[in-house]
Amino acid sequence: MAYLNENYLKLKAGYLFPEIARRVTTFCDQHPEAAQRLIRCGIGDVTEPLPAAVREAMHKAVDEMGRRETFRGYGPEQGYPFLRQAIAQKDYRDHGLEVAEDEVFVSDGSKCDTGNILDILGDRNRIAVTDPVYPVYVDTNVMAGHTGEADTEGVYQGLVYLPCNAENNFVPGLPSEPVDVIYLCYPNNPTGAVATHEQLERWVEYALKHRAIILYDAAYEAYIREEDVPRSIYEIPGARECAIEFRSFSKVGGFTGTRCAFTIVPKSLEAETSGGKRSGLHALWNRRMTTKFNGVSYIVQRGAEALYSEAGQAQVKQLIDLYLGNADVLCKGAKAAGLTVFGGVNAPYIWVRTPGATSSWEAFDKVLHEAHVVITPGSGFGRSGEGYFRISAFNSRGNAEEVSRRLQALSW
Amino acid sequence: MAYLNENYLKLKAGYLFPEIARRVTTFCDQHPEAAQRLIRCGIGDVTEPLPAAVREAMHKAVDEMGRRETFRGYGPEQGYPFLRQAIAQKDYRDHGLEVAEDEVFVSDGSKCDTGNILDILGDRNRIAVTDPVYPVYVDTNVMAGHTGEADTEGVYQGLVYLPCNAENNFVPGLPSEPVDVIYLCYPNNPTGAVATHEQLERWVEYALKHRAIILYDAAYEAYIREEDVPRSIYEIPGARECAIEFRSFSKVGGFTGTRCAFTIVPKSLEAETSGGKRSGLHALWNRRMTTKFNGVSYIVQRGAEALYSEAGQAQVKQLIDLYLGNADVLCKGAKAAGLTVFGGVNAPYIWVRTPGATSSWEAFDKVLHEAHVVITPGSGFGRSGEGYFRISAFNSRGNAEEVSRRLQALSW
Repeated sequence: MAYLNENYLKLKAGYLFPEIARRVTTFCDQHPEAAQRLIRCGIGDVTEPLPAAVREAMHKAVDEMGRRETFRGYGPEQGYPFLRQAIAQKDYRDHGLEVAEDEVFVSDGSKCDTGNILDILGDRNRIAVTDPVYPVYVDTNVMAGHTGEADTEGVYQGLVYLPCNAENNFVPGLPSEPVDVIYLCYPNNPTGAVATHEQLERWVEYALKHRAIILYDAAYEAYIREEDVPRSIYEIPGARECAIEFRSFSKVGGFTGTRCAFTIVPKSLEAETSGGKRSGLHALWNRRMTTKFNGVSYIVQRGAEALYSEAGQAQVKQLIDLYLGNADVLCKGAKAAGLTVFGGVNAPYIWVRTPGATSSWEAFDKVLHEAHVVITPGSGFGRSGEGYFRISAFNSRGNAEEVSRRLQALSW
Repeated sequence: MAYLNENYLKLKAGYLFPEIARRVTTFCDQHPEAAQRLIRCGIGDVTEPLPAAVREAMHKAVDEMGRRETFRGYGPEQGYPFLRQAIAQKDYRDHGLEVAEDEVFVSDGSKCDTGNILDILGDRNRIAVTDPVYPVYVDTNVMAGHTGEADTEGVYQGLVYLPCNAENNFVPGLPSEPVDVIYLCYPNNPTGAVATHEQLERWVEYALKHRAIILYDAAYEAYIREEDVPRSIYEIPGARECAIEFRSFSKVGGFTGTRCAFTIVPKSLEAETSGGKRSGLHALWNRRMTTKFNGVSYIVQRGAEALYSEAGQAQVKQLIDLYLGNADVLCKGAKAAGLTVFGGVNAPYIWVRTPGATSSWEAFDKVLHEAHVVITPGSGFGRSGEGYFRISAFNSRGNAEEVSRRLQALSW
């Protein structure tokens, strides 16, 4: 008799974004004329074309696949040296950070990596997540059996939730109970907050003291424009002994549909067996990737490499300038509408307090039905997200300006 | 204190193919002149260019990514409808097999899928694998904690091994003890054997009777040329209630470096909770894929779709004709060399008995050092693979002919 993984039965409703998609589809079916003017600022998905440098590199790679002499079959599961080298050099060593080429693992997405990383961690870890949080961190822990059941608010037994709110600038304080694995994401999804050096130093100090591991999601690193904001957890001394960093090309080079990301697992990072034996996680992740993964498409890796060329860098800057400019437009619009606004600086997300006692999903429905704009309800990211909604700045400038106008025309 | 997944520490040595790669690199470093004439028939990796239809489709898709109106961001995690539809129609319904579009899950590889499928299965299942076997099935079960330690021969406690040998034509008999999950792969990697309708009927009957699940790996289905050999487990009545099927474009369209595959999870397939409640696995796999995966690159999916066009089908046939022709050349050469040969018909692998008491790795080293040909030692696939080696037919015709000559020149 075959058994299923019962932990899946603990999962609440659908994953957030499919749920939003369902509501939007229903609305569009019922209001086809409004559907025409719908603007999507919900899911954090890029809208602008793939940079020319990337397309040129991919065309070239497709052609290479057409000649026997330059055809590529199975590549290294961890990524091609040309890409691992570019990442280690340009994202880290050029900024004075120690990351070796073979500490870079290229993958098809940070969503996959932040989920799959649990494969190499034990089941006894006490897991801490921020609240609100990117739902994948929570759901993958539920699937892995690291939690009990959820209550009616979607809070799972066995997880340690670290509330993030306006009072702590959306960067959590240290936990009151000991934890072994901590997910941190800065610039933050969904709040658009950034962490300071001092805040990250406190977390690294905590992790070293408790021999805990920080899973640091830096998918939005490219949006940091202010000089004193840390771009990598490895800017903090000691982080190579306690942190894994996830980064993605999705929001850097418009790769959400092209798929490429990477994860840094320092060779100096260790965890323990239940018997107290310490062992390096780099070897475990390498074993996981060589056994359960076959590398990213050669063509896509060549595209990602092109983001590091001079032309690629200029095109990336243009893309991010556009999205950050949108964020500024949206922040100003929401403020002019009388709303209380967070984020939107060094980040492509604007985190907005719902007026009065309006719930997140009420705000979602209202903005959808009256302004024909798709946003993301804050409560979808956790209990502490209730009373907020997220506006994504991934859009054309024209749409950002139109959303700004529509927000100001709404009466709550 | 962060804990690691101790099950990883049970894994023996490296995964087979990295181990082969290490030996080949060492040989080439020590014998640079021999390295010049090295022919690789080890890892089952295609060698011929990506079909023109695929490249055309990918060029077009790259161009689409360059225009805002046709740019694609996040796609459906399960795959684009255009590809799911082509698969369901052309690989199944056109052959009279019932598979719905939404039972098709597009992924970046069958290696990933056959590993990841364990995510949705429980930990109490008794797992059966054939011996010899594709190492990924075993290693991913070790990682998931479904086994005890391995003995000195690499046999893991807690797994049920079903010996495959010349006596049973490399298709295992039913297990003597009850099992819940059975991995079957036909055409088989590594033996090149195929299963008959009668043999698969017995397995489906067993699975239905014991409410077990068959994980059916049909990655080499396209190599079946004989009319009466089943191409899909779903040709067997009742299989929709007990089987998941994995297929890949790797060996069909030369996608080993381009990355695309798919898995069929029928909506009629159920498994149980420990409390005896039955539940559909389709919903669980859908949840897994939407939560831990973000879909295959749009560009790659367009390439895979092109394999189903008229031009694509003709180009696929040409590719497979070439590789099957190679298999024939290699079979004949090995036989002329006095070796006992299996497989190589309806499959791109030739399974050769080592002469006398030669071990698999001894044969590997001898063929590498004396014939400058890379093969795969049978023992790398399991205890019952000892005394065999595998020759891959993935090569140019010229190389296949040269390998055939070199095999005949070897004296054992």
